[in-house]
Amino acid sequence: MSTQAPTPLTYDQAGVNYDLIDPLKVAAQRAAAATGAHLGVHGFAELAGSRGESAYVVDVGPFLLASIVECLGTKTLVADEMQRLTGRSYFDGIAQDTIAMAVNDLITVGATPLVVQAYWAAGGSDWFADADRAQALVRGWKAACDTCQVAWGGGETPALAGIVEAGRIDLAASCTGLVNPKERLTLGDRLGPGDAIVLLASSGIHANGLSLARKLAERLPQGYLTEIEPGQPGWRYGNALLAPTLLYSPVTEALWRAGVPVHYAANITGHGWRKLLRHPKTLAYRIHTLPPVPPVLRFIQHQAAMDDAEAYGTLNMGAGFALFVPADRAEQAAAVARDCGVPAWVAGQVEAGPKQLHIDPLGVQFNGADLQLR
Amino acid sequence: MSTQAPTPLTYDQAGVNYDLIDPLKVAAQRAAAATGAHLGVHGFAELAGSRGESAYVVDVGPFLLASIVECLGTKTLVADEMQRLTGRSYFDGIAQDTIAMAVNDLITVGATPLVVQAYWAAGGSDWFADADRAQALVRGWKAACDTCQVAWGGGETPALAGIVEAGRIDLAASCTGLVNPKERLTLGDRLGPGDAIVLLASSGIHANGLSLARKLAERLPQGYLTEIEPGQPGWRYGNALLAPTLLYSPVTEALWRAGVPVHYAANITGHGWRKLLRHPKTLAYRIHTLPPVPPVLRFIQHQAAMDDAEAYGTLNMGAGFALFVPADRAEQAAAVARDCGVPAWVAGQVEAGPKQLHIDPLGVQFNGADLQLR
Repeated sequence: MSTQAPTPLTYDQAGVNYDLIDPLKVAAQRAAAATGAHLGVHGFAELAGSRGESAYVVDVGPFLLASIVECLGTKTLVADEMQRLTGRSYFDGIAQDTIAMAVNDLITVGATPLVVQAYWAAGGSDWFADADRAQALVRGWKAACDTCQVAWGGGETPALAGIVEAGRIDLAASCTGLVNPKERLTLGDRLGPGDAIVLLASSGIHANGLSLARKLAERLPQGYLTEIEPGQPGWRYGNALLAPTLLYSPVTEALWRAGVPVHYAANITGHGWRKLLRHPKTLAYRIHTLPPVPPVLRFIQHQAAMDDAEAYGTLNMGAGFALFVPADRAEQAAAVARDCGVPAWVAGQVEAGPKQLHIDPLGVQFNGADLQLR
Repeated sequence: MSTQAPTPLTYDQAGVNYDLIDPLKVAAQRAAAATGAHLGVHGFAELAGSRGESAYVVDVGPFLLASIVECLGTKTLVADEMQRLTGRSYFDGIAQDTIAMAVNDLITVGATPLVVQAYWAAGGSDWFADADRAQALVRGWKAACDTCQVAWGGGETPALAGIVEAGRIDLAASCTGLVNPKERLTLGDRLGPGDAIVLLASSGIHANGLSLARKLAERLPQGYLTEIEPGQPGWRYGNALLAPTLLYSPVTEALWRAGVPVHYAANITGHGWRKLLRHPKTLAYRIHTLPPVPPVLRFIQHQAAMDDAEAYGTLNMGAGFALFVPADRAEQAAAVARDCGVPAWVAGQVEAGPKQLHIDPLGVQFNGADLQLR
């Protein structure tokens, strides 16, 4: 463990400037919204309420069609460096991360994921010449599809020398599913005061906050090989970062089978717990119970000298997914998740009031203005 | 126009080594095929015949669900260089190219495209700071969605410094659609001897063969600013390369409305006309009529000293899409395409015999072994 006195590190310092991306996002969202009417030509209609949510939903008659494309981000850079340091490939876990980015978003609208497509854009044909790594990617992709019971439909493996950097790969996944029956839709129409907030455990950093985590590695004396828990030799920063993102679709499917109604769901990714403020309704969210913080996130918070507001506003801090359910079904929802092998906690409730998240055990609050996604 | 004596340039020289990609593809295809059975859990089933075709198809009961993700490839590198040379952005056309890659594949199975998702992975947040370029991308994306009457559902705009090269962008699109009614399915079950081959015009190189085209630019005395037709000053290589890929979904939708049965369809992309051999059936394809070759492709063939077999086996040579229809409906099919503004020709027919493509006017033949996609 580092003995350096931690000095602060922010997300902006880590090189992602959302101010530059956002004007484009706004223009794109406006243009995209104007295309929804085309569905009428085909006899269908979009669910306008799904714009701004994590997956786009179309009413095709007997059920709803949900679709999405999601990028893994820069987690592969950690896997690449750890492969250099340890000689083994981590791309089986990276494959799971990539599928999780898509599947965990798709299920927030109540959809059952059916088909995943692979997007593996390499910096050159030679990326695929490392057979161990390539086979790990295939193996992990298949295993994640098995866990989610989705069909791997196919995909693309372009070699993009000149666009993707040599030796690197840009990974993404698209996912298509159905909300079936339509009553499974969870766009938040039923979300309201009195609902309980059930948090599902994360396995670590998942695939958001990696720019910050990589920046931090640069200033650790042993980099990714730094031990993050003094009492646990061998538990290294790089390995801990590479714990694959949990797949939550087994939980949402089990909840449906168990008859637990879900009023809303949020995938806790970028912006950390601010994602709990995702729904546009004016509601307050009060947290009374915190999930345990994974050691790697505790380590990052300490090393980057982030206060609780910064840590919980950026990282998942142990909560990878949030379910908003009727209060009298909350314990059952958590039990269903645990039966799927995912630790879960009844962590808080929805209240009437201005749009705010109150993390009471920490004395931290976020306002609606802290999360601008639409 | 260059006065250099053309020396040969092959696709391998252009830096794409399919031998390295293919073992991974085979492993991935095998693993993917094993996941199809998961759909049974949800009460659905894959159409096994869609594996190896351009889009994956699932029977969800009342209709079939088709999905796909497609990469643009390296055409953005031409747009970037032309922007540097001319000061204007070509990303409106690039957006159309990207959507065309997905939509033109999806429609080969008989699907109506409904939703497109955008995947715009930039080398850094600063890519989006060039507002002209970013707005051109948004504008072109919207316009292509309008042409195809699809809803732009949303997408991803990650900044991937360290994976995507600085100043570059990796563009892809996912597309989801329905085969509705199911009889519209065109996986080739009805493909057989006597069917006519109708070829739809391309606008130029589209988005395949760009590695070769870029390599060629390096040895032209004026590079992308080289005039490709001596009699047509101002008609430059770079501009001609950047003609956007035609969108063929208006044609397939119009064919359905006109009641023209389509037995099979092939999107002519990588591997050029060898894609006419795509279907696994043992059939011969005889071409009697060639579409006019777009000047830019004629120029590439000449400058790279490609013989006809190499040119037609690599580039689209004026045919961007192939329809296989009953002979007595072929003229009608071509007329429907022309009514959509897409030049079309009844170019040949399907015959009994060993799997071969005979391009009679050129004396060129390809065998089934020349195209290994499965």
